Amino acid sequence: MFSAVPVILAVLTLMAVQATIDCNDHGVFYQEEASLGVTTCACYQCYDGDHCETLLPNCSLETRVAEAAIFEAWFDQVQADLSVTIGPDYHLSYLKAPRTFPPNADPSGYDEISLLLNASIHRLHGKVNNVDTTGMTLVLGAGGVQLIDAALYALTQRNNKQTYMHVYTQPPFYPHFEQASNVNPLTNFTHTLAGIAPGSVIEVLTTPNNPDNRAKQPVVKGSAAQITDLVYYWPHYTSATPKRNDDLMIFSLSKLSGYAASRLGWAFVRDPDVSNKHEYC
Amino acid sequence: MFSAVPVILAVLTLMAVQATIDCNDHGVFYQEEASLGVTTCACYQCYDGDHCETLLPNCSLETRVAEAAIFEAWFDQVQADLSVTIGPDYHLSYLKAPRTFPPNADPSGYDEISLLLNASIHRLHGKVNNVDTTGMTLVLGAGGVQLIDAALYALTQRNNKQTYMHVYTQPPFYPHFEQASNVNPLTNFTHTLAGIAPGSVIEVLTTPNNPDNRAKQPVVKGSAAQITDLVYYWPHYTSATPKRNDDLMIFSLSKLSGYAASRLGWAFVRDPDVSNKHEYC
Repeated sequence: MFSAVPVILAVLTLMAVQATIDCNDHGVFYQEEASLGVTTCACYQCYDGDHCETLLPNCSLETRVAEAAIFEAWFDQVQADLSVTIGPDYHLSYLKAPRTFPPNADPSGYDEISLLLNASIHRLHGKVNNVDTTGMTLVLGAGGVQLIDAALYALTQRNNKQTYMHVYTQPPFYPHFEQASNVNPLTNFTHTLAGIAPGSVIEVLTTPNNPDNRAKQPVVKGSAAQITDLVYYWPHYTSATPKRNDDLMIFSLSKLSGYAASRLGWAFVRDPDVSNKHEYC
Repeated sequence: MFSAVPVILAVLTLMAVQATIDCNDHGVFYQEEASLGVTTCACYQCYDGDHCETLLPNCSLETRVAEAAIFEAWFDQVQADLSVTIGPDYHLSYLKAPRTFPPNADPSGYDEISLLLNASIHRLHGKVNNVDTTGMTLVLGAGGVQLIDAALYALTQRNNKQTYMHVYTQPPFYPHFEQASNVNPLTNFTHTLAGIAPGSVIEVLTTPNNPDNRAKQPVVKGSAAQITDLVYYWPHYTSATPKRNDDLMIFSLSKLSGYAASRLGWAFVRDPDVSNKHEYC
C-alpha cells in the first residue's frame, strides 16, 4: 500500500523546480506554481498583466495585505549559500519544538538547536542594542502571530488575576489583534476605552506601527498588561533606540529578515507566571 | 545592518550537512544535530549508549511519546528523488495557507497548490477506499494536532447550539485530547460520563486507537458531536474497512507516510457551519 505515499510527497518535490519570469519589479513569479503549470506572475496590488506590466488606473491599496518583498534584491544577490536541502532521510520523526529559556537556564537540559537559537537571538540583540533582555525569559514560537495568540492566552491565565480581558490598541492597527482577541473566548477586542476599567485591558503597542510606521506610546494608564509588538523595531526600519524594556516584547524572523515565509518568532517575557503559560498554547 | 540576517539563517543552512552514524536500529542520528557538533545517537526509550547499543534493564516505556520511525527502512531505500531544496530566492513573501474545499467548490477561485492538494487527497482516498467523502468539506491544516484544536473550537461555535462542552474519550487515549480540551476555555476534558448530559459531550473516537490499536466504538448515545481521529485508518496499519462516513474525520500525512516531521493534516467535515468555523482557528 506504500504506493500512496509518493502521491502526496510529490506535491513537495514539485517545489524544487527552478524557473524565472520577469515581473517588472511589480510582482513575483513563484517557482512552486511554475511546477504546477503557472506561467504568469503574481502581481502586487494595482498591477496586472502576465508580467505585471500594467498599472491599474484609480486603484486603491488594501493595506492589511502584507507583501513582504522589501529585501528581495538583497536575497537575489547574496553570495553565501543560504539554501536548505531536505532529503527523505532527513528527520522522519517529530521535530522537537525549541524550548523556552528562563534567565540563567541550565544549558545541560537543552537540545543543541534550542541552545543555538537562544545564543543567536541574544547575540543579535546584543549587536543591534535594541532591547534590554536582563531578567527576561525567551519564548520561541512559529512566527510572531503564534506568539500573539500565546500571549493573549497566557495573560488570561495568570494566578490570582482576572481571566476575562478586553484588548485595545490605538488605530490604525494590524488586524490580527482584533481577530485573535475575538477568537479567544476569554478576550474581546474593543475599539473604545469608554466605560472600561483600565485594569481589565490588555493594551497592544506596535512600534513602529503597522501599517503607518508611527512611534506609538501606550494610552491606557494602569492596564492589566501590555503586549509590545516590536517586529519592526530594527535599525533597517527605524532608529531602534532607545533599548526597549517592556514586560512582553514580540519579535519575528519574518520582519527582521524580510523572509516572511520563514516561521520563527520570539518573545521576551518578564513575568515567569506568564512565560510558563505560553507553553500550553 | 543586514549582517544580522545570516546569523539567524545560518541555523537553517546547518541542516543541510550530511552524515550518518550507526544507531543499531535502536535510535536515530539527526543530521541537523551533527551540524551542531553532536556525535551520538538519539536513542529510543530503553536504549542507551553513543550508538544505542545497550538495552536498559527493568525499563518502562512511556507510551505517550511518539517515535514515528516505523517506515524509516522504506525511506532509506526509496529510489525516487523526494528531496526538497529551498533557496534564498524561493518564496520570500508569506505563503498562502491551503484553502478549505466545500463539496462542488468552484475551482476558479483557488490557487494551484490548494487545487493539487484537494485532488491528491481525494485521489488517495479513492484508491484506498477507506472513507466516503460524499458531501464533505475538506479542511486543510498544519498537521492532525492543529485540526483537533480547530475542531474543538469549531464545535463550540455552532449557530444555535450550546457553547460550553465536555470532551470525553474512552481510555487509553492520546493525551493531546485532554490537554487541548483543557486549554480551550469553552471545553473541559472529563474522565467520566457520570452526571453529564450526553448533549453536552463531544466524544473523540480514535480508531484504530492510539496507543493500543483497538477498533473503538462510540459509547455516548446522543452526544453533541463526535470527532473521529482516523490518522491510523490506513491499510498498512489495519484493515481500513468499511469506508468511514463520520461527521468529522481527521487524517494526517505524518501517520499516513511515517514522515512525522511533515506538517500536513486534513479533515472531512459534514456540517458547513462547523467547517466554516475551522477557518477562524
